[in-house]
Amino acid sequence: MGGDYAPKETVAGAVEAAPEMHGTILLVGRKDEIERVHAGSFPSNIEIIEAPEVVEMDDEPVNAVRRKRNSSLVMGADLVKRGEADAFVSAGNTGAMTAAAQMMWRTIPNISRPAIATVIPCRTGCFVLLDSGATVDADPENLYEFAVMGSVYAESVLGFKSPRVALLNIGEEETKGNQLTKAAYKLLKNDFPGFVGNIEGKHVFDGNVDVVVCDAFVGNVLLKTAQGLGAFVIEMFKESAPKNPLMRLPLILLKGGINRMRKRMDYAEYGGAPLLGVDGICFICHGHSNAKAIKNALLLAQKGHDKHLVAQITEKAARLKLRGERGIGA
Amino acid sequence: MGGDYAPKETVAGAVEAAPEMHGTILLVGRKDEIERVHAGSFPSNIEIIEAPEVVEMDDEPVNAVRRKRNSSLVMGADLVKRGEADAFVSAGNTGAMTAAAQMMWRTIPNISRPAIATVIPCRTGCFVLLDSGATVDADPENLYEFAVMGSVYAESVLGFKSPRVALLNIGEEETKGNQLTKAAYKLLKNDFPGFVGNIEGKHVFDGNVDVVVCDAFVGNVLLKTAQGLGAFVIEMFKESAPKNPLMRLPLILLKGGINRMRKRMDYAEYGGAPLLGVDGICFICHGHSNAKAIKNALLLAQKGHDKHLVAQITEKAARLKLRGERGIGA
Repeated sequence: MGGDYAPKETVAGAVEAAPEMHGTILLVGRKDEIERVHAGSFPSNIEIIEAPEVVEMDDEPVNAVRRKRNSSLVMGADLVKRGEADAFVSAGNTGAMTAAAQMMWRTIPNISRPAIATVIPCRTGCFVLLDSGATVDADPENLYEFAVMGSVYAESVLGFKSPRVALLNIGEEETKGNQLTKAAYKLLKNDFPGFVGNIEGKHVFDGNVDVVVCDAFVGNVLLKTAQGLGAFVIEMFKESAPKNPLMRLPLILLKGGINRMRKRMDYAEYGGAPLLGVDGICFICHGHSNAKAIKNALLLAQKGHDKHLVAQITEKAARLKLRGERGIGA
Repeated sequence: MGGDYAPKETVAGAVEAAPEMHGTILLVGRKDEIERVHAGSFPSNIEIIEAPEVVEMDDEPVNAVRRKRNSSLVMGADLVKRGEADAFVSAGNTGAMTAAAQMMWRTIPNISRPAIATVIPCRTGCFVLLDSGATVDADPENLYEFAVMGSVYAESVLGFKSPRVALLNIGEEETKGNQLTKAAYKLLKNDFPGFVGNIEGKHVFDGNVDVVVCDAFVGNVLLKTAQGLGAFVIEMFKESAPKNPLMRLPLILLKGGINRMRKRMDYAEYGGAPLLGVDGICFICHGHSNAKAIKNALLLAQKGHDKHLVAQITEKAARLKLRGERGIGA
């Protein structure tokens, strides 16, 4: 029921994904609305679970999870908690999704805070940015744990071989950064196989690293700035074209290429972003998600389940855990 | 002597600026090198001050300022300190420039940390981002002070009338953000005339605000991400053009427009970025600065002096200072 185009696009995405899913899709929400937006009968591997309440986009996350027990969001998370579902996909309130997963599923042992991993296009294909939305006040150990989680996701679900993990920073040298990144650099350099050093914002699109680690505040600024500038640059290109309609004709020749570029930049191609570090598979879709994005998120969630994403993060986090209390120093 | 193309471009920029300067330009550096890169005699309002040492780009800032007393950077800052110069412009090591200004000039009363203010193009012209390079670990009071400094710079030097000041954040609502921005929001909302609320990265290019406040870590990420993405998008546009040479001909029609866009994005148009909050006028130029950027920075520095930039910041900081110890609570 969450997201700007729910339940229409959500249901359409599930129907499109159904033939490619080897399990059952449980549509959690208001049954009458779900049936109304879909003409005809549902595929045999789609079931509807009645959830009368809805968490709205502006609901305060923790309150919403505590009070709206019969919402699609809380009931969906509960299905995973009780082992009746293997993964949870939603285009609803990101804060409430994160709160529900943390409060109801808990974090994985040796992981203290979750992170949302977003796939971003770059020159060589794509890279994973985390945290892009869950933990806005992170400590150095959190960033270390994000490296653990992000590298597992990149390798097991996205198919990167031996992912190169970098720390987002304001210079390449070890001495650069704020208190947080200087300390995180030390942890990663000493204890994380696959750490390739700092990366600056101007180089994240070069395609030389596979996983970029930062706190969710900085990750959000990077992501949103990229969105804002992308739109601005495309607009300037359009403005810079000749004004004379006849002279504008040649632009049509560029259209195919621009559409290819748009597609490469289109979040829907990547579906949802996983909330990593919690004890369950959770994919959060953009609020604007269309059917295609929902479908791709469902397929990603299925892949996460098939590749044992949670078990793999649990194993790597236990193996690489920082020594002593919360790791450090013992 | 600092910067990638010094002293050649630095000297050329000074020579180009000279006719528009109503005072004298003191070129601080190795006299023989300065004279070698300039053919013929200098304009009458250019003097050379011998400085045998050079602070290199990879020198540790505080050490460099302490030890290289005869460097162009330290001697330049010293000329301002002794009242023999009214402003200091350099394309040298940013960290060393900041350290020199802080150690030798001190910060203005009621300002605890300096900030670098960068002008960034947007849909309606440009906006000012600060801090983009000086204070990577900021507290809420620092961000408040950046708002004071940034609004004075925007109004007095750049000519914005009653600048609209926004806080860079991860959501528009007051409740959004990390600990730093939530606390800074409260200070700004309660005590800063001209504060228009939070702004997200995706909206900074819309042109609805004039000054965007953040710490230097976040500011650097925003700036560098914008640079990196800008280059990536332009590259994708080129790639997306038809491969057939004949079909590429129409692209020539776009060239004028693209060049106009490049110019709008060109840092050199804006010259240098002021280091605000210190007791003196200091403009820091990009390491890649060409003669045009140096010239524009010199003209901006002159304008800063003419508009009494330091006195105006001092006055506004005293008027708006936060109550009590470092302001708060008394």
